[in-house]
Amino acid sequence: MNNKNFNLSGKTRSEHDLLGNMEVPVEYYFGIQTMRALDNFNISSSRLYHYPHIIVALSDVKAAAAEANQELGLIEPIIAKAIVQACKEIRKGKYHEYFVVDMIQGGAGTSVNMNANEVIANRALEMLGHSKGEYTYCHPNNHVNRSQSTNDTYPTAMKIALYRSIGDLVDTLRNLIVAFHEKGKKFSGVIKMGRTQLQDAVPMTLGQEFEAFAATLEEEVLLLERNRKLLLEINMGATAIGTGINADPRYAEICTRHLAEITGLPVVKAENMIEATSDTGVFIINSSTIKRLAVKISKICNDLRLLSSGPRTGLNEINLPPMQPGSSIMPGKVNPVIPEVVNQIAFKVIGNDLTVTMASEAGQLQLNVMEPIIVFSLMESISILIKGLQTLRKKCIEGITANEEHCKNMVLHSIGLVTALNPYLGYETSSQLAAEALKTGKGVYELVLEKKLMEKEKLDDILKPENMIKPRKMS
Amino acid sequence: MNNKNFNLSGKTRSEHDLLGNMEVPVEYYFGIQTMRALDNFNISSSRLYHYPHIIVALSDVKAAAAEANQELGLIEPIIAKAIVQACKEIRKGKYHEYFVVDMIQGGAGTSVNMNANEVIANRALEMLGHSKGEYTYCHPNNHVNRSQSTNDTYPTAMKIALYRSIGDLVDTLRNLIVAFHEKGKKFSGVIKMGRTQLQDAVPMTLGQEFEAFAATLEEEVLLLERNRKLLLEINMGATAIGTGINADPRYAEICTRHLAEITGLPVVKAENMIEATSDTGVFIINSSTIKRLAVKISKICNDLRLLSSGPRTGLNEINLPPMQPGSSIMPGKVNPVIPEVVNQIAFKVIGNDLTVTMASEAGQLQLNVMEPIIVFSLMESISILIKGLQTLRKKCIEGITANEEHCKNMVLHSIGLVTALNPYLGYETSSQLAAEALKTGKGVYELVLEKKLMEKEKLDDILKPENMIKPRKMS
Amino acid sequence: MNNKNFNLSGKTRSEHDLLGNMEVPVEYYFGIQTMRALDNFNISSSRLYHYPHIIVALSDVKAAAAEANQELGLIEPIIAKAIVQACKEIRKGKYHEYFVVDMIQGGAGTSVNMNANEVIANRALEMLGHSKGEYTYCHPNNHVNRSQSTNDTYPTAMKIALYRSIGDLVDTLRNLIVAFHEKGKKFSGVIKMGRTQLQDAVPMTLGQEFEAFAATLEEEVLLLERNRKLLLEINMGATAIGTGINADPRYAEICTRHLAEITGLPVVKAENMIEATSDTGVFIINSSTIKRLAVKISKICNDLRLLSSGPRTGLNEINLPPMQPGSSIMPGKVNPVIPEVVNQIAFKVIGNDLTVTMASEAGQLQLNVMEPIIVFSLMESISILIKGLQTLRKKCIEGITANEEHCKNMVLHSIGLVTALNPYLGYETSSQLAAEALKTGKGVYELVLEKKLMEKEKLDDILKPENMIKPRKMS
Amino acid sequence: MNNKNFNLSGKTRSEHDLLGNMEVPVEYYFGIQTMRALDNFNISSSRLYHYPHIIVALSDVKAAAAEANQELGLIEPIIAKAIVQACKEIRKGKYHEYFVVDMIQGGAGTSVNMNANEVIANRALEMLGHSKGEYTYCHPNNHVNRSQSTNDTYPTAMKIALYRSIGDLVDTLRNLIVAFHEKGKKFSGVIKMGRTQLQDAVPMTLGQEFEAFAATLEEEVLLLERNRKLLLEINMGATAIGTGINADPRYAEICTRHLAEITGLPVVKAENMIEATSDTGVFIINSSTIKRLAVKISKICNDLRLLSSGPRTGLNEINLPPMQPGSSIMPGKVNPVIPEVVNQIAFKVIGNDLTVTMASEAGQLQLNVMEPIIVFSLMESISILIKGLQTLRKKCIEGITANEEHCKNMVLHSIGLVTALNPYLGYETSSQLAAEALKTGKGVYELVLEKKLMEKEKLDDILKPENMIKPRKMS
Repeated sequence: MNNKNFNLSGKTRSEHDLLGNMEVPVEYYFGIQTMRALDNFNISSSRLYHYPHIIVALSDVKAAAAEANQELGLIEPIIAKAIVQACKEIRKGKYHEYFVVDMIQGGAGTSVNMNANEVIANRALEMLGHSKGEYTYCHPNNHVNRSQSTNDTYPTAMKIALYRSIGDLVDTLRNLIVAFHEKGKKFSGVIKMGRTQLQDAVPMTLGQEFEAFAATLEEEVLLLERNRKLLLEINMGATAIGTGINADPRYAEICTRHLAEITGLPVVKAENMIEATSDTGVFIINSSTIKRLAVKISKICNDLRLLSSGPRTGLNEINLPPMQPGSSIMPGKVNPVIPEVVNQIAFKVIGNDLTVTMASEAGQLQLNVMEPIIVFSLMESISILIKGLQTLRKKCIEGITANEEHCKNMVLHSIGLVTALNPYLGYETSSQLAAEALKTGKGVYELVLEKKLMEKEKLDDILKPENMIKPRKMS
Repeated sequence: MNNKNFNLSGKTRSEHDLLGNMEVPVEYYFGIQTMRALDNFNISSSRLYHYPHIIVALSDVKAAAAEANQELGLIEPIIAKAIVQACKEIRKGKYHEYFVVDMIQGGAGTSVNMNANEVIANRALEMLGHSKGEYTYCHPNNHVNRSQSTNDTYPTAMKIALYRSIGDLVDTLRNLIVAFHEKGKKFSGVIKMGRTQLQDAVPMTLGQEFEAFAATLEEEVLLLERNRKLLLEINMGATAIGTGINADPRYAEICTRHLAEITGLPVVKAENMIEATSDTGVFIINSSTIKRLAVKISKICNDLRLLSSGPRTGLNEINLPPMQPGSSIMPGKVNPVIPEVVNQIAFKVIGNDLTVTMASEAGQLQLNVMEPIIVFSLMESISILIKGLQTLRKKCIEGITANEEHCKNMVLHSIGLVTALNPYLGYETSSQLAAEALKTGKGVYELVLEKKLMEKEKLDDILKPENMIKPRKMS
Repeated sequence: MNNKNFNLSGKTRSEHDLLGNMEVPVEYYFGIQTMRALDNFNISSSRLYHYPHIIVALSDVKAAAAEANQELGLIEPIIAKAIVQACKEIRKGKYHEYFVVDMIQGGAGTSVNMNANEVIANRALEMLGHSKGEYTYCHPNNHVNRSQSTNDTYPTAMKIALYRSIGDLVDTLRNLIVAFHEKGKKFSGVIKMGRTQLQDAVPMTLGQEFEAFAATLEEEVLLLERNRKLLLEINMGATAIGTGINADPRYAEICTRHLAEITGLPVVKAENMIEATSDTGVFIINSSTIKRLAVKISKICNDLRLLSSGPRTGLNEINLPPMQPGSSIMPGKVNPVIPEVVNQIAFKVIGNDLTVTMASEAGQLQLNVMEPIIVFSLMESISILIKGLQTLRKKCIEGITANEEHCKNMVLHSIGLVTALNPYLGYETSSQLAAEALKTGKGVYELVLEKKLMEKEKLDDILKPENMIKPRKMS
Repeated sequence: MNNKNFNLSGKTRSEHDLLGNMEVPVEYYFGIQTMRALDNFNISSSRLYHYPHIIVALSDVKAAAAEANQELGLIEPIIAKAIVQACKEIRKGKYHEYFVVDMIQGGAGTSVNMNANEVIANRALEMLGHSKGEYTYCHPNNHVNRSQSTNDTYPTAMKIALYRSIGDLVDTLRNLIVAFHEKGKKFSGVIKMGRTQLQDAVPMTLGQEFEAFAATLEEEVLLLERNRKLLLEINMGATAIGTGINADPRYAEICTRHLAEITGLPVVKAENMIEATSDTGVFIINSSTIKRLAVKISKICNDLRLLSSGPRTGLNEINLPPMQPGSSIMPGKVNPVIPEVVNQIAFKVIGNDLTVTMASEAGQLQLNVMEPIIVFSLMESISILIKGLQTLRKKCIEGITANEEHCKNMVLHSIGLVTALNPYLGYETSSQLAAEALKTGKGVYELVLEKKLMEKEKLDDILKPENMIKPRKMS
């Protein structure tokens, strides 16, 4: 168990399972099956305790199951209450350090489920006045896991954890959108050239550009919110393969009701429990949605880096706040390090989406055994995106300033102005004007007057930047 | 222009554009800009005419724009009507062979837009009593493209084309779902072992398994329907970069209204037109949704191949209809060739989704110039999926039969039965029973009686297959 | 059989296989198994006849097998000779239209193999004075496929076809490299600013930039050449699963020798034939190599679009040759359409690489049934890359011109010059100079003199552009 | 700085950079630029100190540069020696805890380079009898970074670190191959059915199957070894953009020579330093190679899970060693948890490869600013693969046993035996036999005798399993 230090007395208790006996330090709230998982899966540096939402969701699910079992008379009230109480403590942040299983694991989440079952059983035992390990009085499987299987509790808990994590992501995103809107307002008077295909197009305002960033991210809020709701369809009561073996016919509904109460979330029982037990579609679509956010954020960061390129030999329309010296050799160089790190986060998120895709495709028959890597990939993506978006807002967007004069000058010298003359002079005359401007270096304005193609007054009106950034009566 | 043969008289008309003059065969409805596109982009073997939905959508958009321009007095009624009439003919399937541009192209769809503008202008000219090429009377840019830019017409038309194509996909999918339901009903009495992690789990019916296939695909119908609706948000009137330059302030609304009438689709104007012009989020999410379908279909095909493995040394629970001799060397071998081809289609669709992702991320500033590859990838994915799902239904699912006796025998000899005893004997006793059964080769049933762990009558009741495939009162 | 028209007399011959009888038009050189494949797999618009390298490689393999069988006395010389002769005709381009199977297919290539077996058998029958379909005298399986299985002939033929196709790609690439070198030489005197992280860095020449494009692609030639050689390890004689069942112990060596003679390629027999029969590693690494080329080409096209951005509000260092009017609304706009289309090709190639990856991972036990989609994806990638690179060279690179004056001016006004002073003034003084230059708008040169930090003469020497584009004695 | 606790006295030293002053705790070996990086990049839980190979490689590079600078008279010997000595200590594992920068970072590695420069400078200062922070005597930029840029030292160090990490991976892989060979030998007498397309094919031995696993991985050793060598082409002396500005003309060669001596690796100077500075091709191809290993390992794990499926209702040819109870609800269930976790590692590696691809494509002009995510993705992939392969060997492969009797019985009852009769009875007669066997349930052997198609003696000889697992004289 790297990364975690427990003060150990050296005393152990003996536990056993299908494979034999094992000594477990008496201080450990987890037991033999978690010990085996620690031994079997030492792959990554990410453990359950790095993701508190997961631990809390597990305890929510276990409490709901205990209450349902009690209601159905399947567990004695005193044991059920101890289980529920233990879960409450965990929800408050206690014992998280005993959720130690590696996020990358085999067994379709059994080790996660058993880690929870064991910690809860042992904490309940203490409450009931017993020692850890005296499972006769509260057993990880017979009591804590009663009416359950990993194959219903694990995906249910993971869905709740993901629902909440995506909620955090949405909150962060909303703050970022506010920052973009604020810049949008602030830059509403800054006229600049719009560009398509990296070529000069027609004028717009820098405010419009930043409002478009806000607008495109607002769609992400909607989509994230909409698709995370799909996570609330759960399969408690499905047990092993969705047929509900070993569960009372009333259990699924009752457990779902308790879980809704405990979590405050409108969880609903899946209609087809067999389908719900093997299907990972809800993870795919949420991963896709998160990926879409990553793609958009990456596009925005690309734009920010382009717009701030320079200072002397680039577009230089905006200035990003300097965050650190940019170079170990080039003095005075300041780089767009914050958008750069966010781009890289986006690439990792897109890579993780592929992992989710492949893991989903690998499901077989009544279960998808690859769910742990799906959950890990999603959790990692959400976590680094949250940190990336916070960083982007605080250390970049909020400090952006505009080079207003430079922006305006570029508009005035642009050939793209000719577009506004198109409805008046026709596509072909306008094309010739543009070609001549490019060849001679002259301005479009100058050429129109020179060739007497239009009255100066009308031309001034048409080419007034404020008139070019929105539709205009054509007649 | 490979793949298409026109009877050419050898006569040409002369056309010119920004880059100079070019001779165009008089029979061609397209003109100089399409000729340039043919010369510039000779990349793939896929042309516009392979995708009739695209051509029809282009003509819908051009007709709507013409009607809006007429309503605003921006085009003479006689010209507008000729344009609308030409579009109507195209919608009915005429002149499709003149939509010749390669699906893989640079220029952000300008060549597609100009191909449409030119064909429509020339057909309208004929109707107006002029010769092709006499653009003074109906000009590809000044009339057909009036108040438009490639950057609003192209994405709008592509969205409508995709909306309809996904509609076709959904129809095909619904038929497949019916086939799965029918098998679900037919196999509702076939008891078999469920498997998790490829290991024997607990009993279920083959009918439940096929109903789960149907259920998981029904979710795809919902998601496809929901996400394709997002394609109906369009940006007509945005013109070059979304600011609406060269469009009348009333144009966007009016054009959108006409387009809704012509198409019968509830298209709506995007709120932020600048955002709408550069954003490709709607393509990403639809690609993701199509990918999710591909992942699920691939999983189902994997299952079908597993369940039909054998005939003697595999699971052999079901028989797929034989479609062709399976081997050039192994006589009598019949392979699951239909699921195999569908798996491969799924992999291509997943690859295409990555193409869409990368192309979306590559958008810059006021436009995403990579839209053509996005559209092509989506269209290809939809097309091969439609053919794959039709093939899967007709040549595989509808002909599947079950090996009922063999399925039942596997249940009766399974150790997984012990799970049903878990609530009565406890997890640990049950574990020991399972271990002993595995070691000795004895049956679970036999062992319970031998060890007098339960009355025969109760045991019979618990282990009755029909009692194991659903929840059961626990008390 | 879409896309192909045969003049049919209406007469048929009757053929039969494991599944029953079927009438085949007498004109068809293919037979019943190809007919079944046509019926089963109607997925894409890509057929075998679109890829002549595949058809030629199939005939090479079949000829080699026939010669080996003759040498071993397993087929009568007269039949073997007819087979070899038929293959020769095919190699010369005849009968390609009868290779009709869809590139996307189930059955692990059996339909491709049988299509070849049938066409060759029927053409051989004609040569032997029999009618098509009189298989007693030359049978698709018993003679043409003798000592073979799809599982050795199909991958062997596909490897040879890919080897040759990649050879074509390398040739195209070499030509492109020449074009970059030529521009490198031509632009060797054009001083410009180098940029890192899109920020002004230090001076270089445009020639150095284009030589770097050439240099990075030269590495691709090496890697493509090196990895395509891996395709020459073949498994003829492996038959069904690599054990060589139904093949004479001497056959594998003899057949490999004949294949080397026929193709002129140093093909070698795999050491472990069982591994060789199921493994697709060689396709993965070749797909990866092609993907790497795509990534580099995309990066280069991104650079070309950046460097040519403008003309007035971008970097505007180079001019790409105008290929077509750039906009339907913006007169005079010219866009970098050629790099744009090449970027999109790159994204498709990268998507195809994912398809190859997933298909490879899906191999099971003694065979990878997904090979057809692997082959199709690779063939498509190679084909569109070849066309893309040809287009890039002819329609873009060869016509690029430099805006020399503008490039030089940007250097002279750049703050990045300060880097050259670093070794003389130290990192901190230089940083302050840079900061002051940025703030005041003054030049670095001016500031150094103003502050008397260095003698004018020495400063002139250090800041001479020619002295900043290469290492320089520091003392 | 999470995860690391330093005992801080509360005392600070003041440092300054381009952006201003900052107080740094006196105990810290790193300085102000690292502090800024910590503040700017708090994204993941992975820091430099998690990857000792990186830290060691950085110190190797810095020592080589110092020696080169000393040789050229660019740094005083006493300072150079202190730098080299500090690097030596770091190489031995000291001060690693001060390499604290997040692996996901903006700035193209500048923070990594400055973290190294600062730690080395401060440790050198101590050795020279100065306090940390007294940079006049040994400056992070002017001395430690002399003649260098992040853009040459960072990629050079990362390449060396990756070279060594891949070396570790190869070692682990070799051990796994040994384990497969041992099982290959052990199972050389176990006759079993080979399967293609999941359908019964022809006999082979289990030993052949395991030898094929070994053989396919041996190719990975070769490819990994071959491609990691490409990492030894470095660009020391390139400085900022490859032009070598601020480096002495002799420096590149001298520094490369010293680096070769220090590392014991045959590093060579890139020919085109400008290309070498922006190019990431070597990372792509190494990522592809690692991905290919992941694909193969995943395929092998899929096979192991298939072959061990059951115990009663699957293939059940082999037994994986039980590692943990498999289910919280199904007593006695044991799952293939080790192959399962390795599959998931493979999916993560494949996802990481996509991240590398996208990051590489995002390079612009003279630098690829996305290198940090490339390095992180590669390092993560290598690390989890090493742990996965170790786990696979020790906890799975070494403990596999065969169900020999069951394997043999499946062969004897298989219809696939008919293949061996093909050369004697012809494809069509054999096909009919197979069809009849399938329909009637009779054995092939039985039917041949019944129909008197062959003498019993000859039949026995042909169908002897030992005769079916290799080529056989045909006459």
